[in-house]
Amino acid sequence: MTRISPRHPRYRSLLLRDELARAARQGIVVPEGLIAQGRGEAFDYLLGERTTPSARRAIRRAAEWMRSARRPVLSVNGNVAALASDRVARLAKLLPNLGIEVNLFHRTPERVRRIGRRLAAAGVRPVLGLRPTVRIPHLPSDRARVDARGIAVADLCIIPLEDGDRTEALRRLGKRIVAIDLNPLSRTAQSADLTIVDELTRALDGLLAELERTAQLPAPRRPRGISNRALLDDAIARIRAGARPAARRPGRRRPRRRARRGRSAGRPRKGTGRR
Amino acid sequence: MTRISPRHPRYRSLLLRDELARAARQGIVVPEGLIAQGRGEAFDYLLGERTTPSARRAIRRAAEWMRSARRPVLSVNGNVAALASDRVARLAKLLPNLGIEVNLFHRTPERVRRIGRRLAAAGVRPVLGLRPTVRIPHLPSDRARVDARGIAVADLCIIPLEDGDRTEALRRLGKRIVAIDLNPLSRTAQSADLTIVDELTRALDGLLAELERTAQLPAPRRPRGISNRALLDDAIARIRAGARPAARRPGRRRPRRRARRGRSAGRPRKGTGRR
Repeated sequence: MTRISPRHPRYRSLLLRDELARAARQGIVVPEGLIAQGRGEAFDYLLGERTTPSARRAIRRAAEWMRSARRPVLSVNGNVAALASDRVARLAKLLPNLGIEVNLFHRTPERVRRIGRRLAAAGVRPVLGLRPTVRIPHLPSDRARVDARGIAVADLCIIPLEDGDRTEALRRLGKRIVAIDLNPLSRTAQSADLTIVDELTRALDGLLAELERTAQLPAPRRPRGISNRALLDDAIARIRAGARPAARRPGRRRPRRRARRGRSAGRPRKGTGRR
Repeated sequence: MTRISPRHPRYRSLLLRDELARAARQGIVVPEGLIAQGRGEAFDYLLGERTTPSARRAIRRAAEWMRSARRPVLSVNGNVAALASDRVARLAKLLPNLGIEVNLFHRTPERVRRIGRRLAAAGVRPVLGLRPTVRIPHLPSDRARVDARGIAVADLCIIPLEDGDRTEALRRLGKRIVAIDLNPLSRTAQSADLTIVDELTRALDGLLAELERTAQLPAPRRPRGISNRALLDDAIARIRAGARPAARRPGRRRPRRRARRGRSAGRPRKGTGRR
């Protein structure tokens, strides 16, 4: 699609954007998923496009919860399949009782097939959710349809990039929820038991590293709690700090050439908004 | 696409989202444009999804600049055509010397034709940029191609939803730039002469109202200046204020049902992030 220099300060973010645009052209990602990606990009930009210390804490605790769960299930939508099928497959290898379930808001048989194929190609066996037979009560939309071997019986659901209605419906079923969401103000982030406020691929890399590190240890018998409020407040504080004016330069309202601005370490250089 | 209740607190934002998703399915909007829309949505959400007082000042000054310009030209990309062709046509009727020029980063003959048709159907005559013959120097990409009757000879360019490289290239040509951009930290927002930090359709509605209000007045001979820095700093301060923790509720880390939270007037209720 677009050529991006690896030296671009926002290389990784721009690569993911291109990856997702490509998946949209292949019918894996829907337009609404692209818009959602953009929302995440804006929050990630304000967060500094890196895993914050509080997100790292959230990742460590989430890995602990995954290890101690009876049946953890990771919900996969089009964006997750497009951006992270490989990582999802590696998670499932590290944690044999982890179910991987396709769950789509904009569900068509063809789209389910494509996403199932992409996960299978990455090594996921079995891919759940291809023929869902159970419904989550009080949730109008195809997102309510779940697999009898997966989300329906899960005690822990890991839901990256989820909508608020579904998060709340899963909560009402008494499931423990780990969300991955860059917007700490979203209903999903606010209503999950534990929210990893981090970009999807960074969060999954963190979970993979943590599960690898603890692979030889016995699973904790009871997962420890965590204050999701404190995690979210920290993310919100970082977003506030990320939204700060550039250094003021006196005089010259209309320079012919734009002066180079000193960039502080925390904020990546902005890329181009190409339409 | 999706049914949205008019009583939804984020009705307008969700309507625009659906409109853009539909335009993407029609080949008017590219995937990158959808992602850009999402970035804008996040900033608009933090801004409270309404025109701020400083954006209103920016709109008034921009209208003055448009009235006093010799040849103002409004640059139209896929997102602008999808969301605001009608408003663009009304602007051109109010301001007869305003040129309307199609300019695309992801340019294909078919896409140019579709966008030209949509503008023409809304009443824009002539649609510039369909057969561009001039190039903006030092700008690799199709965005450099401009119309000899439009941007090439413009003294004022109005560039909604623009990328930073092109903004800077237009500045180097000595053109006065009015940007419409929801991200006050973007290179476009930072390098324009005047940035309206507001959602596109609200900003255009504001410009239309201002041009109607002043239609009988003589055009100002010399446009007055404005501190873009001050406009941007105000927007940044509002974004910081928009990112604030929800009210703390004591105890109950895992309520079965989510308690209704008091919302302060400034922040709209968050919609669903559906993928």
